[in-house]
Amino acid sequence: MRNFPAALERLTEQFARLPGIGSKSAQRLAFHVLSLPDEQAEEFASAIVDAKKTVKTCPVCQNLTDQELCPICADPERDHSVICVVAEPKDVIAMERAREFGGVYHVLHGVISPLNHVGPDDIRIRELLLRVGQGDVQEIIMATNPDTEGEATAMYLSRLLRPMGVKVTRLAYGIPVGSQLEYADEVTLLRALEGRQEI
Amino acid sequence: MRNFPAALERLTEQFARLPGIGSKSAQRLAFHVLSLPDEQAEEFASAIVDAKKTVKTCPVCQNLTDQELCPICADPERDHSVICVVAEPKDVIAMERAREFGGVYHVLHGVISPLNHVGPDDIRIRELLLRVGQGDVQEIIMATNPDTEGEATAMYLSRLLRPMGVKVTRLAYGIPVGSQLEYADEVTLLRALEGRQEI
Repeated sequence: MRNFPAALERLTEQFARLPGIGSKSAQRLAFHVLSLPDEQAEEFASAIVDAKKTVKTCPVCQNLTDQELCPICADPERDHSVICVVAEPKDVIAMERAREFGGVYHVLHGVISPLNHVGPDDIRIRELLLRVGQGDVQEIIMATNPDTEGEATAMYLSRLLRPMGVKVTRLAYGIPVGSQLEYADEVTLLRALEGRQEI
Repeated sequence: MRNFPAALERLTEQFARLPGIGSKSAQRLAFHVLSLPDEQAEEFASAIVDAKKTVKTCPVCQNLTDQELCPICADPERDHSVICVVAEPKDVIAMERAREFGGVYHVLHGVISPLNHVGPDDIRIRELLLRVGQGDVQEIIMATNPDTEGEATAMYLSRLLRPMGVKVTRLAYGIPVGSQLEYADEVTLLRALEGRQEI
């Protein structure tokens, strides 16, 4: 025997295919699974199958959901004329945590990133244009990350959306609440100054 | 909706239980699984179940196997009177790579480590003593790692085994072949000097 049993090798390969897991880690994880009680290993396996089977994207906002329409799109109390555009599903959770936004979302599932070979057709831009084209959207709030790619994606989208007669806005830049001024970087301070408001 | 769909949360939890995977990595891995084609996700799930179902420990040497008896223990060409004791299944593979050892193995599945709450009863020592007690074992070669815990485990075992009338040896210490003397640590050099051989 020069190798591990075939089923163990196969499991190691599966772990090694996951992003950020090298071959040594994959082996360690496979051994860990072998050491689990039967029912825990089965729980793990069925969690994979269940997640894959039940979690879909909402046909309207593209957010992940296990329902026909996601709870936010299905909520008549929310303002469906204001769409907040975010890059990832986790950004929706971050926004909802603020308990301030009463509109709906659109999840792009990525940002335009030529370096990573992600073009406009690789993220859910077409679906957003379709939504806006169907009318009664008043405002689109860009809430992509304040980094180069998030900015570029927001700029790209705003150029497409403005001719459609919709107001396009961007989350305000500024110093984070609770932070200390001395640690704020120059660009953030510059944006905070530019966006200063009367009190 | 303040959270991800339940099935996604469950999958994230499963990944977070794996050793060395934090909650952020777990989320990343869960999202990755969602992005896989259906058949790849199912392959992953069945690799877990299959490995768990088919991989057992050999009743003689305790190494992992998908057969009744592991191929090495089942091989009549090997010398069953010489047992090489290793800590982990991967050490068997390393030893076999040298294509030199013609005896059989015993896999402890760990080393004694009071700091990690691993005592003599937590590794496969009882099984080794049973094997030796059943007779016709001539020599036990200790091949645990040359670190503190590996050493201590080898010492502990040799003290148990010697009274049973079996020869207990240890892999030689010395400078690794292909290495450079200037990078060898003092302890290794000391051991290499002590173990010097006539040429």
